[in-house]
Amino acid sequence: MTDFTLNCPLPISRYPNVVMAHGGGGRLMHNLIQHVFVSTFGGAEPHAMHDAAELLGNGRRLAFTTDAYVVRPLFFPGGCIGDLAVNGTVNDLAMAGARPRWLSAAFVLEEGLPIETLIQVTAAMSDAARRAGVTIVAGDTKVVEHGRCDGMYITTSGVGVIEHEQTVNPLQVRPGDAVLLSGDLARHGIAVMAAREGFDFDTDVRSDCAPLAEPVMALFRAGIEVHCLRDLTRGGLASALVEIAESAGVTIAIEDTAIPVAPAVFSACELLGFDPMQVANEGRFVAFVPQEHADDALTTLRSYPVSSGAVCIGAVRDTSRGMVVVRTLGGERPVDMLSGELLPRIC
Amino acid sequence: MTDFTLNCPLPISRYPNVVMAHGGGGRLMHNLIQHVFVSTFGGAEPHAMHDAAELLGNGRRLAFTTDAYVVRPLFFPGGCIGDLAVNGTVNDLAMAGARPRWLSAAFVLEEGLPIETLIQVTAAMSDAARRAGVTIVAGDTKVVEHGRCDGMYITTSGVGVIEHEQTVNPLQVRPGDAVLLSGDLARHGIAVMAAREGFDFDTDVRSDCAPLAEPVMALFRAGIEVHCLRDLTRGGLASALVEIAESAGVTIAIEDTAIPVAPAVFSACELLGFDPMQVANEGRFVAFVPQEHADDALTTLRSYPVSSGAVCIGAVRDTSRGMVVVRTLGGERPVDMLSGELLPRIC
Repeated sequence: MTDFTLNCPLPISRYPNVVMAHGGGGRLMHNLIQHVFVSTFGGAEPHAMHDAAELLGNGRRLAFTTDAYVVRPLFFPGGCIGDLAVNGTVNDLAMAGARPRWLSAAFVLEEGLPIETLIQVTAAMSDAARRAGVTIVAGDTKVVEHGRCDGMYITTSGVGVIEHEQTVNPLQVRPGDAVLLSGDLARHGIAVMAAREGFDFDTDVRSDCAPLAEPVMALFRAGIEVHCLRDLTRGGLASALVEIAESAGVTIAIEDTAIPVAPAVFSACELLGFDPMQVANEGRFVAFVPQEHADDALTTLRSYPVSSGAVCIGAVRDTSRGMVVVRTLGGERPVDMLSGELLPRIC
Repeated sequence: MTDFTLNCPLPISRYPNVVMAHGGGGRLMHNLIQHVFVSTFGGAEPHAMHDAAELLGNGRRLAFTTDAYVVRPLFFPGGCIGDLAVNGTVNDLAMAGARPRWLSAAFVLEEGLPIETLIQVTAAMSDAARRAGVTIVAGDTKVVEHGRCDGMYITTSGVGVIEHEQTVNPLQVRPGDAVLLSGDLARHGIAVMAAREGFDFDTDVRSDCAPLAEPVMALFRAGIEVHCLRDLTRGGLASALVEIAESAGVTIAIEDTAIPVAPAVFSACELLGFDPMQVANEGRFVAFVPQEHADDALTTLRSYPVSSGAVCIGAVRDTSRGMVVVRTLGGERPVDMLSGELLPRIC
């Protein structure tokens, strides 16, 4: 690894130690993944470490994914770390075009955690698994001393089955593709922020945490050509679109006025100085489909409660510059990933 | 979950909060798994949550497993958290009779962790994966504030392919089965203990951390009937045998003098008051095979460096009492799981 360290490009070398933003879903995390994990583990394609990986075995296509959950606080309006951990992994599988089937759950528990809290969280996981049609088949528990954890951390991994013939990843994105967004933005981030800081917003904002596999499977069943899917977690819509644009080498142009944000969420974002496009969601995704399939895809998505607010927010331009632009009343401006840390420990 | 809480049997109700021993691999952890996780997630069979789960999909048999690693210190003689995390999951798959193929790795990093440490650990993971013939295909990174972790925790999950027709689990264990042990005991626990506490034992004791899939796959290739396999991690040989005996409803009788322990390890155990049978290993396993296959199985195991010290340590008796006994010069005594916590954060 010495060679790697010596050759390590900025900005890793500007950060000799891990900082919170390395987990924030923005540019710094992107660089850490590229320069440490992908380099070391040898992911051949840039998107390999982001979403579920496809396992090419004999006979059938499987997707495999993992995510650690460290959200603070453990309980927030609309959910808790338990359903977050189940839905997050379910959604990563769905974004790979797979039907989620089996989950594992590994717990790191802090000494002193009330067993009752653990029971509430596992009950929430069990409910979420049932709703998403997955089975939790394997688990592990470790305990660390008081002060070496924050209540509990959960890592869920998942295996799903790809039941169609399509290939779904950023490299399939084509000029002309419509960019569909499944619903309004930024609910999860604002709900967690409010629970953590004790803010009392006018309206009750609840997390959008929900399983997304049903509407996604429906797209495939309806025969819609799906080029790319991405859920909008850490880093929000902005990070997701920038990662896709950079991987695919395309320019994604979105319309500011087309992006739905609930009034209460919008007010909270204004108050806190957050851009709703950079705030985390746990039940929203984008789908890239050919323009001629966009209307059918929207009709399909809108027939499910979780994606009833689906809209087209833009299109892929015929240029090879890997970037995202947003069109506003005042003109057009580039969108970048979060460079620092907006809101740590959001998931 | 209220009903469950009210009906919750001892000893969960004696422990309203998580204690270190809930992660120790002994009786208390066993109870936590049974009364919280298996109850909630509904593992139909008692062994479902312990080892890799078998995924019954169309076409082929897969195994799926997960483990969190919180070992302290991160580096110890013979390994580090990285190779431990890879080998541990590789071994769980092997113990399900599966050929390990794909791994995921989720990191919880503590703010302030040197990036150089992360690079060393991921390099060790990469090496371990190559040696074990697995590919790390998916990953995730979260960062928590300084003081909310202990450097890093890693959760690895794995998927393997079961390439034979046998069923391998505690319910297959039969009276008359030979109990084979793949090598000497307690190296990992003593090596970590020495690194943590700065003990200077006479001889350099290194962890036995190693991948076990090769000798296990060789057993199947040799046509040996394998009833049950179990690696001897937290809780050591004692916990593994007691869990199997209780699940299978059989009495396992082992010979004290047949159990190999290296002199330096034995001395360290004596000094610390540890029973080598209760100390963790990361490269040792037991195999239950019919008596008539025992010699062939030992020959096969001994042809691999990692299991060159394989011996027969006992047999399964023709009785339905689920317990373990050890025969010593002075007679016979029952063996139980660790009741408390021998050595926290060993893996």
